[in-house]
Amino acid sequence: MTQDKPNRFKVHRRSKSPPPATGPSIANVKPTSVFFPSQDIRPFPKNALLLYGFHAVREALRNKDRQHLILYATEPAARRLESEITTSGLVPRIVTTENLSRMLVAGAVHQGVALVTLGLSSPDLSAIPSGRGLVVVLDQITDPHNVGAILRLAAAFGVDAVITTERHAAELYGVTAKAASGGLEHVSVVRVVNLARALRDLGDLGYLRIGLDSEAATNLAAIELRYPLALVLGGEGKGLRRLSRENCDTLARLDLPGPIKSLNVSNACAVALTLLQRGLAASSTFRP
Amino acid sequence: MTQDKPNRFKVHRRSKSPPPATGPSIANVKPTSVFFPSQDIRPFPKNALLLYGFHAVREALRNKDRQHLILYATEPAARRLESEITTSGLVPRIVTTENLSRMLVAGAVHQGVALVTLGLSSPDLSAIPSGRGLVVVLDQITDPHNVGAILRLAAAFGVDAVITTERHAAELYGVTAKAASGGLEHVSVVRVVNLARALRDLGDLGYLRIGLDSEAATNLAAIELRYPLALVLGGEGKGLRRLSRENCDTLARLDLPGPIKSLNVSNACAVALTLLQRGLAASSTFRP
Repeated sequence: MTQDKPNRFKVHRRSKSPPPATGPSIANVKPTSVFFPSQDIRPFPKNALLLYGFHAVREALRNKDRQHLILYATEPAARRLESEITTSGLVPRIVTTENLSRMLVAGAVHQGVALVTLGLSSPDLSAIPSGRGLVVVLDQITDPHNVGAILRLAAAFGVDAVITTERHAAELYGVTAKAASGGLEHVSVVRVVNLARALRDLGDLGYLRIGLDSEAATNLAAIELRYPLALVLGGEGKGLRRLSRENCDTLARLDLPGPIKSLNVSNACAVALTLLQRGLAASSTFRP
Repeated sequence: MTQDKPNRFKVHRRSKSPPPATGPSIANVKPTSVFFPSQDIRPFPKNALLLYGFHAVREALRNKDRQHLILYATEPAARRLESEITTSGLVPRIVTTENLSRMLVAGAVHQGVALVTLGLSSPDLSAIPSGRGLVVVLDQITDPHNVGAILRLAAAFGVDAVITTERHAAELYGVTAKAASGGLEHVSVVRVVNLARALRDLGDLGYLRIGLDSEAATNLAAIELRYPLALVLGGEGKGLRRLSRENCDTLARLDLPGPIKSLNVSNACAVALTLLQRGLAASSTFRP
């Protein structure tokens, strides 16, 4: 297997001989500003998405719930991903770094790989896997770096699910997936139309809903916790919306001893998850 | 004071009557790709920097260690900053949102304000204020969003100083300052030429030097801590350099129970600072 690697992958170079028209068009792959070789002419399904970045693509290839369509990779990246590629059954289309950069949005940190794949399904709130009894709820967080970092945190801390709005939220591909560094493949993401209703439903399901708010009267470390627990985070600048606040059981701030009293939302999430993981009080530790 | 606000500020609109040539040129203000009105013709000092974003500018105006040169603000932003502007003695140059956007690099989230100011001085390692006995050391972290978020964390957690390399590191203005959200004004930043030597000096000063490494054998929570303590963070992707690792007393990983074992560097910093703040063990709590 190792010996025939140099010959396994045909390098596609736009300017010289064009590659054969083996794949469908990815003109409708989100983000739509991606420029793929024009020889890809058949249309993709509407839920086709683009992932790039080594960890994002590697974890996606390992995810048996994903249906993959095309993998573009440089030769070195294809070698690093050899076992994942073999398992996936995909035949990578070998490209140069420069061509891959031209195919993607300007500045995309692709690290030699881009994967066209189908989006993952969004489970119902009632179907959230019951693991640690902890979910993170995002109230219209639009910055893909922040949402990606939160997905990575959620995967690192073994959170059961991330719940987000369908609209006014970062999309689950491209920059978000790159920032999640594979986290997207390890956390159930529940997309809801109406977040206030979702918070009410979580209440009915027994979740203690805690909204983080840097100006709340109560310190998170002073709250008697019980699980399952929903940690609710607001968007950059505007924080939690009124209806989101009203559908929390309590609002809490982080105990920050210094002169700056608010954090970037992904860092606020990191601090809160650490506090929850370590057990804020004798009565409150992560399950199990 | 409140009554004469509408008349206090003359609106500068490039396309109509140009503003008077009251200020020097900011053509040499970093970042150099900033486009300021051509009527500013006198040169600025070489250490002139540009800050933008509401919190970044407000905290800078409040910082008595800063020497400010020019403040550009929209009328609403100037009103929100009225007390800081009055204290600073600056006369703001009132601009429209659109003109300010044109003056700055594309996509700069200025929130109606931009401030030309001089850089802050960098203290020596031996002159770090002795507060909590905790410093954060950055080993060539180049992403300005990450460095800004870490400065904000450092200010929020009351860290004594952030130590960074002069080269191969994010600059302390623009995007970094915006992401720091004012944190830059509340933390001493020590810029060193040689980080390995700085780590040795910290050792001589009695600091316990802990390098974060997602693949370290020891969990941070298992280390017997003592203060003063230096938390050493490596750059995106490449982690700590060899000489940095060799000049740490110990390497430690974060205890992450989920399938993803590494975090964005600012999130790793947030987790570590939270653990240190809460006291990992009976023998280790923040001072005082």
